[in-house]
Amino acid sequence: MTEYQAFKVELNDNIAHVQINRPEKYNAMNAPFWSEIVEIFKWIDDTDAVRAVVISGAGKHFSAGIDLMMLASLANELGKDVGRNARLLRRTILRMQASFNAVDNCRKPVLAAIQGYCIGGAIDLVSACDMRYCSSDAQFSIKEIDMGMAADVGTLQRLPRIIGDGIMRELAYTGRTVEAEEAQRIGLVNRVYDDHQALLEGVFAIAAEIAGKSPIAVAGTKEMLSYMRDHRIDDGLEYIATWNAAMLQSTDLRVAVAAHMSKQKPEFAD
Amino acid sequence: MTEYQAFKVELNDNIAHVQINRPEKYNAMNAPFWSEIVEIFKWIDDTDAVRAVVISGAGKHFSAGIDLMMLASLANELGKDVGRNARLLRRTILRMQASFNAVDNCRKPVLAAIQGYCIGGAIDLVSACDMRYCSSDAQFSIKEIDMGMAADVGTLQRLPRIIGDGIMRELAYTGRTVEAEEAQRIGLVNRVYDDHQALLEGVFAIAAEIAGKSPIAVAGTKEMLSYMRDHRIDDGLEYIATWNAAMLQSTDLRVAVAAHMSKQKPEFAD
Amino acid sequence: MTEYQAFKVELNDNIAHVQINRPEKYNAMNAPFWSEIVEIFKWIDDTDAVRAVVISGAGKHFSAGIDLMMLASLANELGKDVGRNARLLRRTILRMQASFNAVDNCRKPVLAAIQGYCIGGAIDLVSACDMRYCSSDAQFSIKEIDMGMAADVGTLQRLPRIIGDGIMRELAYTGRTVEAEEAQRIGLVNRVYDDHQALLEGVFAIAAEIAGKSPIAVAGTKEMLSYMRDHRIDDGLEYIATWNAAMLQSTDLRVAVAAHMSKQKPEFAD
Amino acid sequence: MTEYQAFKVELNDNIAHVQINRPEKYNAMNAPFWSEIVEIFKWIDDTDAVRAVVISGAGKHFSAGIDLMMLASLANELGKDVGRNARLLRRTILRMQASFNAVDNCRKPVLAAIQGYCIGGAIDLVSACDMRYCSSDAQFSIKEIDMGMAADVGTLQRLPRIIGDGIMRELAYTGRTVEAEEAQRIGLVNRVYDDHQALLEGVFAIAAEIAGKSPIAVAGTKEMLSYMRDHRIDDGLEYIATWNAAMLQSTDLRVAVAAHMSKQKPEFAD
Amino acid sequence: MTEYQAFKVELNDNIAHVQINRPEKYNAMNAPFWSEIVEIFKWIDDTDAVRAVVISGAGKHFSAGIDLMMLASLANELGKDVGRNARLLRRTILRMQASFNAVDNCRKPVLAAIQGYCIGGAIDLVSACDMRYCSSDAQFSIKEIDMGMAADVGTLQRLPRIIGDGIMRELAYTGRTVEAEEAQRIGLVNRVYDDHQALLEGVFAIAAEIAGKSPIAVAGTKEMLSYMRDHRIDDGLEYIATWNAAMLQSTDLRVAVAAHMSKQKPEFAD
Amino acid sequence: MTEYQAFKVELNDNIAHVQINRPEKYNAMNAPFWSEIVEIFKWIDDTDAVRAVVISGAGKHFSAGIDLMMLASLANELGKDVGRNARLLRRTILRMQASFNAVDNCRKPVLAAIQGYCIGGAIDLVSACDMRYCSSDAQFSIKEIDMGMAADVGTLQRLPRIIGDGIMRELAYTGRTVEAEEAQRIGLVNRVYDDHQALLEGVFAIAAEIAGKSPIAVAGTKEMLSYMRDHRIDDGLEYIATWNAAMLQSTDLRVAVAAHMSKQKPEFAD
Repeated sequence: MTEYQAFKVELNDNIAHVQINRPEKYNAMNAPFWSEIVEIFKWIDDTDAVRAVVISGAGKHFSAGIDLMMLASLANELGKDVGRNARLLRRTILRMQASFNAVDNCRKPVLAAIQGYCIGGAIDLVSACDMRYCSSDAQFSIKEIDMGMAADVGTLQRLPRIIGDGIMRELAYTGRTVEAEEAQRIGLVNRVYDDHQALLEGVFAIAAEIAGKSPIAVAGTKEMLSYMRDHRIDDGLEYIATWNAAMLQSTDLRVAVAAHMSKQKPEFAD
Repeated sequence: MTEYQAFKVELNDNIAHVQINRPEKYNAMNAPFWSEIVEIFKWIDDTDAVRAVVISGAGKHFSAGIDLMMLASLANELGKDVGRNARLLRRTILRMQASFNAVDNCRKPVLAAIQGYCIGGAIDLVSACDMRYCSSDAQFSIKEIDMGMAADVGTLQRLPRIIGDGIMRELAYTGRTVEAEEAQRIGLVNRVYDDHQALLEGVFAIAAEIAGKSPIAVAGTKEMLSYMRDHRIDDGLEYIATWNAAMLQSTDLRVAVAAHMSKQKPEFAD
Repeated sequence: MTEYQAFKVELNDNIAHVQINRPEKYNAMNAPFWSEIVEIFKWIDDTDAVRAVVISGAGKHFSAGIDLMMLASLANELGKDVGRNARLLRRTILRMQASFNAVDNCRKPVLAAIQGYCIGGAIDLVSACDMRYCSSDAQFSIKEIDMGMAADVGTLQRLPRIIGDGIMRELAYTGRTVEAEEAQRIGLVNRVYDDHQALLEGVFAIAAEIAGKSPIAVAGTKEMLSYMRDHRIDDGLEYIATWNAAMLQSTDLRVAVAAHMSKQKPEFAD
Repeated sequence: MTEYQAFKVELNDNIAHVQINRPEKYNAMNAPFWSEIVEIFKWIDDTDAVRAVVISGAGKHFSAGIDLMMLASLANELGKDVGRNARLLRRTILRMQASFNAVDNCRKPVLAAIQGYCIGGAIDLVSACDMRYCSSDAQFSIKEIDMGMAADVGTLQRLPRIIGDGIMRELAYTGRTVEAEEAQRIGLVNRVYDDHQALLEGVFAIAAEIAGKSPIAVAGTKEMLSYMRDHRIDDGLEYIATWNAAMLQSTDLRVAVAAHMSKQKPEFAD
Repeated sequence: MTEYQAFKVELNDNIAHVQINRPEKYNAMNAPFWSEIVEIFKWIDDTDAVRAVVISGAGKHFSAGIDLMMLASLANELGKDVGRNARLLRRTILRMQASFNAVDNCRKPVLAAIQGYCIGGAIDLVSACDMRYCSSDAQFSIKEIDMGMAADVGTLQRLPRIIGDGIMRELAYTGRTVEAEEAQRIGLVNRVYDDHQALLEGVFAIAAEIAGKSPIAVAGTKEMLSYMRDHRIDDGLEYIATWNAAMLQSTDLRVAVAAHMSKQKPEFAD
Repeated sequence: MTEYQAFKVELNDNIAHVQINRPEKYNAMNAPFWSEIVEIFKWIDDTDAVRAVVISGAGKHFSAGIDLMMLASLANELGKDVGRNARLLRRTILRMQASFNAVDNCRKPVLAAIQGYCIGGAIDLVSACDMRYCSSDAQFSIKEIDMGMAADVGTLQRLPRIIGDGIMRELAYTGRTVEAEEAQRIGLVNRVYDDHQALLEGVFAIAAEIAGKSPIAVAGTKEMLSYMRDHRIDDGLEYIATWNAAMLQSTDLRVAVAAHMSKQKPEFAD
């Protein structure tokens, strides 16, 4: 397994565990973070043995968001011409967005296990995951508003689909903290666990459940659900028909039906 | 009333009751099911006397989804050329989707009354209804994932609009069972009734409420709500303005206003 | 401050208070209402000193919706040719929609404080606001269905994004009353306050919170959230990157970071 | 081959010839026309032996458009309530549109061979074809404007994609006649032939060329080109990738490559 | 008729003639131009007696585009904060775009008669018209590129639909001059007339032709063609069906059919 | 300058010349071609000194399309499971599409100079360029249809926007050869030059013209034109307003205006 500066990555039982690993810095997102996450998810995408992914943070907190040192060094690159600065800033934002697009576009389901702080850029990150789970001490805040800026790496784009437009706006305009219980009530997380250990065990159990399914079926399901976030129902129906025109010829259906008949757990190839 | 193999259909008090009627087979969806449902909803659409529709299942369960015998016979039609198989599969899926599109596109509101199992294809079906209600023994499961395939007749397209993206993905990837109480909490059903009888009485009461409104107004409202699932707000505003340019010239407004003034229940033509 | 017939407008501490002011008529929306609201929101948009807006209703009720006298006078304008009547009706509806589009398109967040009746056109209005809050006596009803017509000034377009498709349809087809508690559960309001005074205090406190943020950041956040109601995620990401290419060159970031470092409250220019 | 009232249909050498066959009425589109065309194209779609389609008109003219007798009988169905009339008219228009959608959605390429008059509804029809060819005596006119109505069965929707927005508007607003030479210059037809016989020979030669290609490849190409009329480039790229994921496993590629190597004409199964 | 600073407006025989009237300044677009054009087209939209519109330029040239003095005064409004400047510039551009949107959204067809220079902002203007005609001395140039900026009031948005993507890019990147003959060949104008007088006579003849048609039918046609520039074919079909559900109940059809039967010119009400 | 296997790349006078350099193989697109083109366009995008790009082919022909050896080796990677083969094929096609997306997404204008054969994949490539020019011996053919497949790396997606839907279909279904003269007439190329030398001189002259403009203005223009291929006019207007909110604060406007005043050629920074 490759070594990373900002992450620790493990693969066991077809589940990749991607751990943000700067606990002494509240897992703040520094320059290596933004580039390594792309490499990691490229590896995940290319590795058929990975069937589900868990993202978590080492230590007490999931992540406090972008590292302010990184913002400062960005500011230093700016010159005198507003137009050329804009060109530079636009490219930089697009590149940072690409880091979380790599999570969103990953062909395998990605589960976020969130404890402690989940702030600013961390919300952008978990909004790009398939599902979110937290421990009872979790605290969420769309902190960008307090930095004098509109969040620009995914929260404002993806979170409204998850929690609805009404509460979304309150959270985005005020940056107020959301506790675990409210997070579940508004649909930000699917479940709250008592503590960090229960959180990880619970999330890995769900990931294991998913890893046991046909990877062809799971990939098709994810493709379709992502597609439906911003396509029409009729387009989605046509797309799945075209997709399944190939995929229903896979052996996985026969494996599944045979297992169902014999009441055994099916074994699917990667 | 026409006789059907897979359904029993009745029309009373402007409400059509469409009952899946294979209780000995858990109301599994066989070949006649898929073609008859199209005929039934064509009749509903063409019959002005029908103003609301209730779909339910005979016996203990709503439906266990597609009949596996039907899948098996589909598999037998496949030949040696992958390309021509794909052509055949794609057409078959599109035709099956059309069966539930007939429900979705029906000009009258369709209410699903769900007891017991609501599994696999049954979720696709109720996702195409306007509203869903269940009894306390209802159990929902997006079972396709356990058949080694991505659901392809509507669940993945329509359900995210109803229950939100976060919990949707967990249910679709794991196929886990959702009980009645959770179903209400996540918005999958609007209300839970104590038992089967209370369920039918409750749903028919709502249907009767709707059947008493102006059919012109109800049809316009449904057209608009369906349209808004995948159109822009500005397009929707323009569309309703064009729609109401004709419909506000209907006598139903005058009937409604007169009834409102005289504190009486209005009587609208079909 | 300009005097209005249907409204009372005040500006204090960067918060505009727009009060519907026909308490003796349940704040029903008469002809001056529809035109004055456009002027008021144009003034709000053009006045940098306004950073947040609260809409409320004078007296016991928020609003009982459109004034039936106004509908009657509209009916009198119709002539004999159905086509030319349709042309006239379509223009009239579009013009009335424009009144609430002015609220929706306002560059500053708009908070609705709702007590008592919120009926018919009043739902269209609050659907065009950013967030909704109510007191425990609030009652909501999509009353248009009982007037024999499909709602046509925004409810059917905007509300499904806020409360989800399943419950939306029940409320739109039946026009049944929703009480405060249910309104919060389905996401129609963000919070319920005990009484009118608590409601206004609570909503003004949230508005004050927002008014203290960088107006550049708040405007960008609102622009993006409105955009995401009907655009794709990839388009949204590109749009915010282009937006922030200019806005991250604002001094507000430096003000915010400096305040953050010195643990002081930042002061942003209008 | 089934007998039709308004058409004569033949199938030779994998080419279906669909001929409008009311020459004594200038091939005006009467009631049987609108329903039979749906049946014919359903048969074409379901018959793998049909690989290309030619539409032409018997006698001196292609078609003079909708039969005015049919319009008159439609008018007779209208009642007193404007709203219910609108409901009826809307359904009728949608059903007539469906007749030409059957042409547009046909999985095989459809070539129109046009001589003499091509007026009103006939333009709607040829706009739904893949390609258009004419003889030098052809005359085109968007005649609906002179009937006091906006064309509503496809011309205004499909023709701008073919001839561009600028000239489209002139033709639609004025209804003026376009001769063969101008028709080619603005892209309305692909080629002008000297006379009726040369037209049919030329069009059948192109159809034969298409019928000799892999039907899997031709169907994929048509699906994609139709899709691109109203989808984004990125969506189109993803769609063809999904489509070809199945279709490139067809034997037709091997047949084509082998024929290419041996310099022989490939023979593809239907 | 109202007096304008930048325009001369006349109404004769149901045709409004809107003439840019600063010939001594090459009809450059100054501040009054941008606001008066909105008023003029609001008047046109609200005046049923106007059935077609001709835009032309007084003197030797159509227009040399935006007045540079106006740009200079805009520059003077800018302050020190890049973010607030961006806010101001964005609003200003949107307001200038609204001036040409008023032309584009006008319910009556707008014909541009172009002689001499048609440069920079003048291309943006004529791109917002329905059709374009020119005299043989016309010269077109997308001049913005030579001012160091991307055109931002409509050329880049609307012109590609008219002349196609390939030649569009060459003209937009180079700003090179297009002469009348090429303008017709690429579809930028529909026809070239020998001189200014022939141009005006020709364009007014076409406008008179349109003004003689049913205004209900022309308005529906324009609505649909504008809609189809950025909507799907299936949406367009549904929209026209809804539109015509009202409009086919107009008396204009009967007037048209009766005139057709009696071989007389129909007379339609405004 | 980096050395490439399939290309020769030069940078002179702010123009990058990207030459396909396998003349002995008719410039067929082999494996290095598909990966190197991504690297080259990444370099172009990141290098501010490049302001325009010319793509040409070494030797007698532009390119004969994909190297059949490469297709053969792809076929060898396929296994027994249709589903997993589909997964592999889909990824491969998406990766090959990405090679031409790199051309399409390049921030600088790309001009194709085409002589001799331009066949199959070569059409996909030039469709992704901004403009196309050819010499009189050029021959175009959408050859994929003769390989038994639908073109899947961009032709079917991008070319209809350039040449219109009618002629597009004929070329895609038949694969027939288009000569230079017809290519210009249908808008596939902007201009035909007499021979190879005239072609290169002509195209480099246009590229030089573009390279002399403000790179900020050119980049904005390209962004907008690409955006308009698949966005709505109102979205495009809003996007350019947001874009220019930053870019109009660039010094390039002042440079351009000053040059214009002094009748000198402006000098813009990279």
